[in-house]
Parts: sequence; structure tokens; C-alpha cells
Amino acid sequence: MNTQLMNELKEDYGIVFHDVDLLEQAFTHSSYVNEHRNLHLSDNERLEFLGDAVLELIVSRYLYRELPDLPEGKLTKLRAAIVREDSLSMFAKDCRFDQYIRLGKGEENSGGRKRPSLLCDLFEAFLGALYLDQGLESVDGFLTAVVFPKVKAGAFSHEMDHKTRLQEVLQRSGDVSINYRLTKEEGPAHERIFWTEVYCDDVLIGEGQGKSKKLSEQAAAENALASLDQ
Amino acid sequence: MNTQLMNELKEDYGIVFHDVDLLEQAFTHSSYVNEHRNLHLSDNERLEFLGDAVLELIVSRYLYRELPDLPEGKLTKLRAAIVREDSLSMFAKDCRFDQYIRLGKGEENSGGRKRPSLLCDLFEAFLGALYLDQGLESVDGFLTAVVFPKVKAGAFSHEMDHKTRLQEVLQRSGDVSINYRLTKEEGPAHERIFWTEVYCDDVLIGEGQGKSKKLSEQAAAENALASLDQ
Repeated sequence: MNTQLMNELKEDYGIVFHDVDLLEQAFTHSSYVNEHRNLHLSDNERLEFLGDAVLELIVSRYLYRELPDLPEGKLTKLRAAIVREDSLSMFAKDCRFDQYIRLGKGEENSGGRKRPSLLCDLFEAFLGALYLDQGLESVDGFLTAVVFPKVKAGAFSHEMDHKTRLQEVLQRSGDVSINYRLTKEEGPAHERIFWTEVYCDDVLIGEGQGKSKKLSEQAAAENALASLDQ
Repeated sequence: MNTQLMNELKEDYGIVFHDVDLLEQAFTHSSYVNEHRNLHLSDNERLEFLGDAVLELIVSRYLYRELPDLPEGKLTKLRAAIVREDSLSMFAKDCRFDQYIRLGKGEENSGGRKRPSLLCDLFEAFLGALYLDQGLESVDGFLTAVVFPKVKAGAFSHEMDHKTRLQEVLQRSGDVSINYRLTKEEGPAHERIFWTEVYCDDVLIGEGQGKSKKLSEQAAAENALASLDQ
């Protein structure tokens, strides 16, 4: 096992694995396993399955305790923002996990080491391994160091509602008028899809689709925010 | 608090709540709170948020341990089948929880007591309350009595793959030819939607849509199975 990773985990988070094979498995991508069939390694995908659920519970418990007045709908949105792919890949990079994942050559050459979905899976697999090795409270301690300070600082609060966020961004430079227009709806009643465009002072700035008018407006606002960021 | 519910929990599952208010909250629907504003009650929605994550972890851990050779993709599908709305509402009825939920009159008159989404939320809220009152292992004990025997008996295995299941059902009465035809694809590359029809001996028996050709085929098979059931 990579001793530099083990040293960093010990120094930065006080974590020492009892079963080092679990840690190694968490940092082994399927592409590496496929290129080293003679070694009979296991990839990190099953650990990711488990880690995903461990993360979900610890984040839920944290939000439930810390935000006693927040209604269920907003708790759910905040949780989704914290556990989504780009957030988790950011945490993986914060922990320098991207330096230590073992990849196959093809995956390496195609930039796998920087791919958000791969880093997100790696972060969850690490949580799964830590849970199996040391239990729930140890994972809680790790997330208290890595994730919760960012939640407390409001890093995810703005993601709860794209329309509110878009309004805030656009009106920073003065009063503007923002309009949402439903342009199309399609499909049978039980799986209807809605298309919405959003305009700022009559200029089209984003479009989106969703399973309700409201969701399509949120998608349009999210799309507009993404293009404003570029 | 309803003493009959408390007796049943004790007799059937050996569960005695320390904080009876938590149990009461789990069995209180928002419609009841709205009709009794003077009582300053809390509804079960935040408990449901928490219970959802508790359930997810315990089911994941169970599947991870019991099925050591199942790859991640199949574990994920099996977990989804177990925690989905109609499964959880069935468990709620198995436990006779539908008898004890407190509803507002409007909700009661419109058949809320039998509504799968309401019963699913109730089941999750109960798990959230039990977790807060007695911890993870107590919830594990309850699910070991109520949910896992059904998983072991294969009640969810058939839901892992609708195409396989459709084939099995149609070929019970002899050899037939089953064909999937992609009829339409639409939308930009990153959110493309596919439509597929499924034919049995050239007769259209189902259609479905999804974010990939494969998912649209699964949806078509599921749709065909649903009409065959009727």
C-alpha cells in the first residue's frame, strides 16, 4: 500500500486502517484491475455502493440536528447538493485522493484522474472502507473535518433554489426584469415533460426541461447560471 | 399515544419507545397538524427525511454482507427495488401502521390511509423515530423481522431486470419472438431521450422512454409487464 497516503491519513485526520487491504481496495479503479488480471485484485465499486449510503446517513443526521427548524423539503435539497457528484469530487481533491487512485493506462491517458464521476466514486469508496474498518462514528469524525465546515460556511445553501440564486446574481448590477416562459409540453399525462426559457430584460439567457413547470423553470435558471459563470 | 400501537410494537417486535413523543410524531401526518393548530404538534416529515437515510444504510449493509459476489450495479438495482414506494407501503401495511396514522379529515376522506406515498413516508418516519430513540442496531433488528425475510425469499430479485422478467413471463406458454424497436430519440447530446417499443410476435405490447437506449428498453418491458398483469 502507498505509505504516503497512509501517512497523510494519519497526520491529517488521525486515521490508521486496521485492514490495509480495504484501504487499498478503495483506491483501486476497475480499469487497474482489468489490466492486472493475474493479481486477482478487487475494484472499489462495491465499497462505493456501501459508502454512498454511509455518507447519506451521516449527512442527513448532521442536517437534522443542526437545522432543527428547516422543513423536510429544504433538508432534502440541501442534502442533495452536498452529496452530488461535483461536491464529492471536490472533497476528494481537497483530501488529495486523486493523487493515490490506481488507474489502468487507458483511463489514465484519457484524464480519468481528473474526472468528477471517478473522484466522486473514490470518495464514497473510501467512506465505505473506513466504515467497514472502524464503524459509523469514525466516518462521522472524518466528515466533520472535511465536509461539515463547508456546510456551516454556507457553501451549499445557494444551491437550494436556482431561481432565487439567478435573481440574486442578475440584480447585483441593478434592477432587471426576469421572465420565465413555458415553450412546450409533451408526453402522456403521467410522464409529461415541460420546456421553459428564461429571459433577462427580454434577452434569452437559459432554457431547461423537467417533469413539472416548476422543475423546468429551475432547470432553466440553473442553465442560465452556468452560462453566466463562463 | 395510542396504547394499541404501543402494545403491538412490544408484542410483535419487542420495541418499547423511551420517548413516546417521537413515536407519536412519526404517526402524525401534516394534514392532522393543519387541522389542530392549537395543539402545536409536529408532523412526521423531518423524521421521514432521516428514516429514509437510515433505511438506505441498513439495507445497503445487509446486501453488501449477504451477497458478497454481486457486482455494484446489481446491488444498486436490488436496493432501489427494496426501498421504493410500493415496497415500503407494503411493509407499512404488513406492520398494520396504516391503522394508526393520524390524518386530517380531508386526507382521510380522499383515501389517504391507503395511499402508497403516505404509507411509504410513514414507514420511513417510524424508522427515523426508532433510530433517534434507540440507535441503528435497533432499526436493524426491526428490519430483520419485517424486510429481510422477504429479500431472502427472492421477493425483489425479479425486479432487477424487466427485460429478463418479460421474457420469462411471455415464454411460459411456448416460444415467442420478442423485439425491441427504437422509434425516436430527441434532445441535446447530454440530455437525450430515447423511445422504444416492444413487440411480441410482431404485436406491440409496450413502450417506454429513458435516458439511454437500454433504459428505454427496460421501461418498455416494465410497461408491457404492467399491462399483462391487468
